[in-house]
Amino acid sequence: MQMGTVFQASTAVWPSQITLVDVTPRDGLQDADTFVTTEQKLAFINALIESGVRHIEVTSFMHPKWIPQLADADTLASRLPRVPGVTYSALIPNMRGYERAHTAGIAEVVLVVSASESHNKANLNRSIDASLHQLTEVATRAKADGIQVRGAIATAFGCPFEGAVAPEAVIRIAQAYATMGVDQVSLADTIGVGNPRQIYTLFTQIRTELPANMPLAAHLHDRSGYALANVFAALQAGVTSFDAAVGGLGGCPYAPGAPGNLSLEALTAYVEAMGFNTEISLPKLASARQQLLNDLAHGEPVTSGHSMRQTETASHHS
Amino acid sequence: MQMGTVFQASTAVWPSQITLVDVTPRDGLQDADTFVTTEQKLAFINALIESGVRHIEVTSFMHPKWIPQLADADTLASRLPRVPGVTYSALIPNMRGYERAHTAGIAEVVLVVSASESHNKANLNRSIDASLHQLTEVATRAKADGIQVRGAIATAFGCPFEGAVAPEAVIRIAQAYATMGVDQVSLADTIGVGNPRQIYTLFTQIRTELPANMPLAAHLHDRSGYALANVFAALQAGVTSFDAAVGGLGGCPYAPGAPGNLSLEALTAYVEAMGFNTEISLPKLASARQQLLNDLAHGEPVTSGHSMRQTETASHHS
Repeated sequence: MQMGTVFQASTAVWPSQITLVDVTPRDGLQDADTFVTTEQKLAFINALIESGVRHIEVTSFMHPKWIPQLADADTLASRLPRVPGVTYSALIPNMRGYERAHTAGIAEVVLVVSASESHNKANLNRSIDASLHQLTEVATRAKADGIQVRGAIATAFGCPFEGAVAPEAVIRIAQAYATMGVDQVSLADTIGVGNPRQIYTLFTQIRTELPANMPLAAHLHDRSGYALANVFAALQAGVTSFDAAVGGLGGCPYAPGAPGNLSLEALTAYVEAMGFNTEISLPKLASARQQLLNDLAHGEPVTSGHSMRQTETASHHS
Repeated sequence: MQMGTVFQASTAVWPSQITLVDVTPRDGLQDADTFVTTEQKLAFINALIESGVRHIEVTSFMHPKWIPQLADADTLASRLPRVPGVTYSALIPNMRGYERAHTAGIAEVVLVVSASESHNKANLNRSIDASLHQLTEVATRAKADGIQVRGAIATAFGCPFEGAVAPEAVIRIAQAYATMGVDQVSLADTIGVGNPRQIYTLFTQIRTELPANMPLAAHLHDRSGYALANVFAALQAGVTSFDAAVGGLGGCPYAPGAPGNLSLEALTAYVEAMGFNTEISLPKLASARQQLLNDLAHGEPVTSGHSMRQTETASHHS
């Protein structure tokens, strides 16, 4: 046997703390086949908080007709329980969405643009440059309002329409976000095609190109069982915040075949095994999941959003 | 939202080449409920080679009564097809096993000892020190015969009987192997409880304690979907050789609840995605798996090995 090529090993690093963001109410539900009512969403969010979750992406402020599952964004946001230490964020496609979120009391917004033109067109119905122009105005306004801003980049590791995505396309958007003054840059593996070498390499490039100490986040979907490996790779590249959804729910209505989100339960157990203290109770999270799955199983069917998708473009996020 | 603690990222390294070792005929079958005949094993090994696999751990040279599934070790080894570029290895518990393997023409032997006393006792019916003493004699003999020697350490990341295993216990055995002059040190996650942080840390410690450029291998079982992440962590720690079994077959009859091996198919797709060229054909590997699963489904039931386990101790490997 050839005993293997010997090479110099890396020097691993470990952050002192990581942040887990539950995106179930937004990304976990935006493509659901049934409606979850506002009351049920509030009960679920309360159950998440009871489980120890402290960061929740609660909804998207899109035009209600595009994502009917999240058409209650304004009502939901205004009725969220105010709990010390709990932060709610919401996805924002444009200034109108920002204004609605701000009115509803959302203290953290997530901007989004895709790294691939065709997904940005399908998702947001405009070019990447047009998105960046609009988001710059939103970011400026948010900063003035004292609102935290995350800059998310969809399809950063692969596009359902274009396949491979050039790292330069991602870096360009990340730099635009930095120029806008965002508080964090998040790379999304919208269709779950990234592998840890790619995750590590791209996040490392991003770090090099961004101002020092820009916080980085990963939004991972899990197609082939690589998501947990991708978390480790991202940690090694300096990422300290991870999105996930209860039960691995979710997908992207504008990314054909997109798999579900990284499971929050799996992520929690995994990072706990690696010595991070999440303060999340897995039994309580299991109860929260069970109730939500029950709500989904008995909800009214969603029809309008799906039917429109065939002929129109829309604004939401992967 | 707290945007996360910023820290210095690691600098990843990538070996120019990695080695995948199929351990299906040994570890994938040693705990099977049915017998696979010698002819069927030879057909499977030929199918592996046809798929592009170049390193195959074919059997264990234990006393036949302990692992009846592998009781045909001598016959199988002597009938292996001689194919240029293909290396066969076999597990060796003691000098008698070594002599049988050498007689049968095996060119590479795998020594094994557990890092935990209770698993070593269950697996090999002796203390760790007694194992090391015997294996030193085997290694000396093998070196004189020009036989390659891998030194494997079972339960390196956790023991079914003792739970956590002290890194010092693993390091001590690794050092003993190095003193014996082995060509490679392999750490086995026998019961699939390792996480990538632990994998990275222990392999890095081992590297520090061993002579420079000692080749390292990982033998991973997959309990919680961590095995692929563990591969990435091991790569980062300088590991260049990985064991796996077709279909994730296997377990350990002396490690209660041990999950199957890391799947060779999953490992192959994963490392190919990361840019390594395995020269393994996944469709051909699927055919090989299908035939083996068919053989297993229709084989004669194994009874003696399982029944003996309740009352006696034995010699094999995880």
